[in-house]
Amino acid sequence: MTKVKAIQEYLQKNDVDAAFITTPDNVFYVSGFASEPHERLLGVMIFKEAEPFLICPLMEVPDVKASGWAFEAVGHADTDDAWDILSSAVAKRGVELEKIAIEKSHLTVERLERMEQIFQSAQFPRLDEQLNNMRNIKSEDELNKLRKAAELADYAIEVGCKEIAEGKTELEILMAIEFEMKKKGAEKMAFDTMVLSGPKTASPHGTPGDRKIQKGDFVLFDLGVVYEGYCSDITRTVAFGEPSEKQREIYETVKKAEQTAIDLVRPGVKAKELDKAARDVITEAGYGEYFTHRLGHGLGISVHEFPSITGTNEMELVEGMVFTIEPGIYNPDITGVRIEDDVVVTANGVEVLTRFPKELKIIEAK
Amino acid sequence: MTKVKAIQEYLQKNDVDAAFITTPDNVFYVSGFASEPHERLLGVMIFKEAEPFLICPLMEVPDVKASGWAFEAVGHADTDDAWDILSSAVAKRGVELEKIAIEKSHLTVERLERMEQIFQSAQFPRLDEQLNNMRNIKSEDELNKLRKAAELADYAIEVGCKEIAEGKTELEILMAIEFEMKKKGAEKMAFDTMVLSGPKTASPHGTPGDRKIQKGDFVLFDLGVVYEGYCSDITRTVAFGEPSEKQREIYETVKKAEQTAIDLVRPGVKAKELDKAARDVITEAGYGEYFTHRLGHGLGISVHEFPSITGTNEMELVEGMVFTIEPGIYNPDITGVRIEDDVVVTANGVEVLTRFPKELKIIEAK
Repeated sequence: MTKVKAIQEYLQKNDVDAAFITTPDNVFYVSGFASEPHERLLGVMIFKEAEPFLICPLMEVPDVKASGWAFEAVGHADTDDAWDILSSAVAKRGVELEKIAIEKSHLTVERLERMEQIFQSAQFPRLDEQLNNMRNIKSEDELNKLRKAAELADYAIEVGCKEIAEGKTELEILMAIEFEMKKKGAEKMAFDTMVLSGPKTASPHGTPGDRKIQKGDFVLFDLGVVYEGYCSDITRTVAFGEPSEKQREIYETVKKAEQTAIDLVRPGVKAKELDKAARDVITEAGYGEYFTHRLGHGLGISVHEFPSITGTNEMELVEGMVFTIEPGIYNPDITGVRIEDDVVVTANGVEVLTRFPKELKIIEAK
Repeated sequence: MTKVKAIQEYLQKNDVDAAFITTPDNVFYVSGFASEPHERLLGVMIFKEAEPFLICPLMEVPDVKASGWAFEAVGHADTDDAWDILSSAVAKRGVELEKIAIEKSHLTVERLERMEQIFQSAQFPRLDEQLNNMRNIKSEDELNKLRKAAELADYAIEVGCKEIAEGKTELEILMAIEFEMKKKGAEKMAFDTMVLSGPKTASPHGTPGDRKIQKGDFVLFDLGVVYEGYCSDITRTVAFGEPSEKQREIYETVKKAEQTAIDLVRPGVKAKELDKAARDVITEAGYGEYFTHRLGHGLGISVHEFPSITGTNEMELVEGMVFTIEPGIYNPDITGVRIEDDVVVTANGVEVLTRFPKELKIIEAK
């Protein structure tokens, strides 16, 4: 069933006249058209019965057609009032809109006020949960793109490991990775690539810079690529030169925590049980205070989407969900370590998409 | 006067009890704290009289202090309801909020609904125009950052020109530019760097790729960097090997159009007069149909901000405004050319921030 058809069924079942979708990722999800419109109006209007349309800046209309959108594409020029154009496209269909579902976590107050002017007697229920629920469960086609994105991320880690050498800066390694990814056909990186070394690994949100790699450093890579609109997200931490006892202990603790959570993944398990399982391993090893973030996040068209894998999320896992598992220990006196994989909930368990080995990799420091 | 003080004066004058600012660029503008909170709550609450506070994810509180924010920084953990934390921080101040100004072009419907629950009798007027008006006029401190960002952009063009060689791909040139920028201390590029060659120059929104530079190509660079939170944005088009008559004609037309608009800049002139002046030059040369976008856009913390330099904007220029001037001709049968500078409106005229020469540069093709 197409995404448009699924939303039409939702509208019919809930007696809502139309859905207006403006989050760029959701527009891509339902239409196949990817675009970042900035302040310009981009949206898909789906009706209970009438033909849907996509509204976008005029110069993008040819791209919409090329993307495979099978319905009308309505363009607005910079000199138009885009809302007048939208209003006409609705009027042309001769439908009365009493209830228009919107994405309340994305639509701005200003835009809702415009819609309230145009559709004066309409109510505006939430569409957010419906779209999240649809996107939460990946189709086989989506999984194939995620597999490919993960494969590219694995390769990026391989490239990064090969680039590590005494005296090279984090930024030099980062640029080499990104250059190789572009050559391999990755559309873009899924987020700002992270290459952190030595004490900087202890900052979960550090920024790569001019620090030079030294013997005894741990080097942490956190990166992902976008492949046909779908993201990957992997973290690996490797040693440059022989690690200390304490560094090893932290590494093995994180590795065990990550594997423990992965082994638990199957339909029916609650998200919070995964977080707890990984956290327990780290806490028992005495590093609980240094694991300062949630276990993971959903992954798909967005690099952070539903489900959120936190210690309080009661949601039960369902086949087709995709998320990261990424425990970390950030001890500023010893080192930071994070290990992250992308996983799919399968009928009976788990498929791990990212496959770069997790045995502690020690790169020889000559 | 500090930004916080200026907003307090605005609140007093307009009898508004508080302003809640959540657009990340505006949060940076008023507080000096730069952050991309994604779905998490980040905001600055400024009161008519009570002490302002900044609310942010808990782990960013130390960064807020380090950024120089002189008032309270209220953190919320992932397990908190951020709005409860906000509500308590307001209650602590013992102020009654009847009117809270918000950024309607940014705040989501969901967030407004939460605020309506917390502040049940409050009204929510617009704050957008006030912030835009403040940001529209740059201080000397802001101009110094913009000058530095422009200087780095000039250097990036120089790097790009040196990288051009037969058989090199657009992406290879692009990566060399970005690598050099990071080495020079640019925080990041202001937007996706554009390096387009040959027929691809005729697409105003083209994507750099594997196309190899050939003799007879025009090569178009459109790029910018962020320096201490402020953006630059420059475009230069250069020739690889001797250009044809027609290529030269298009280049000189764009160059004349751009200079004509720059020469007009001074306080009191309307934005639309600049667009018209440049467009007239291009139309008179017979290329009017190939200049398909507005003349320019405001520049500052955002790479696209106010003012917009369009054919319909009646706004008069004021000293301290900063914007781009970037006419182009995109003729798919000959070539595309765009030339773009960043300019400041001064007391008596104009200061051009970007300074890379605009005489047609011909790079020898051996």
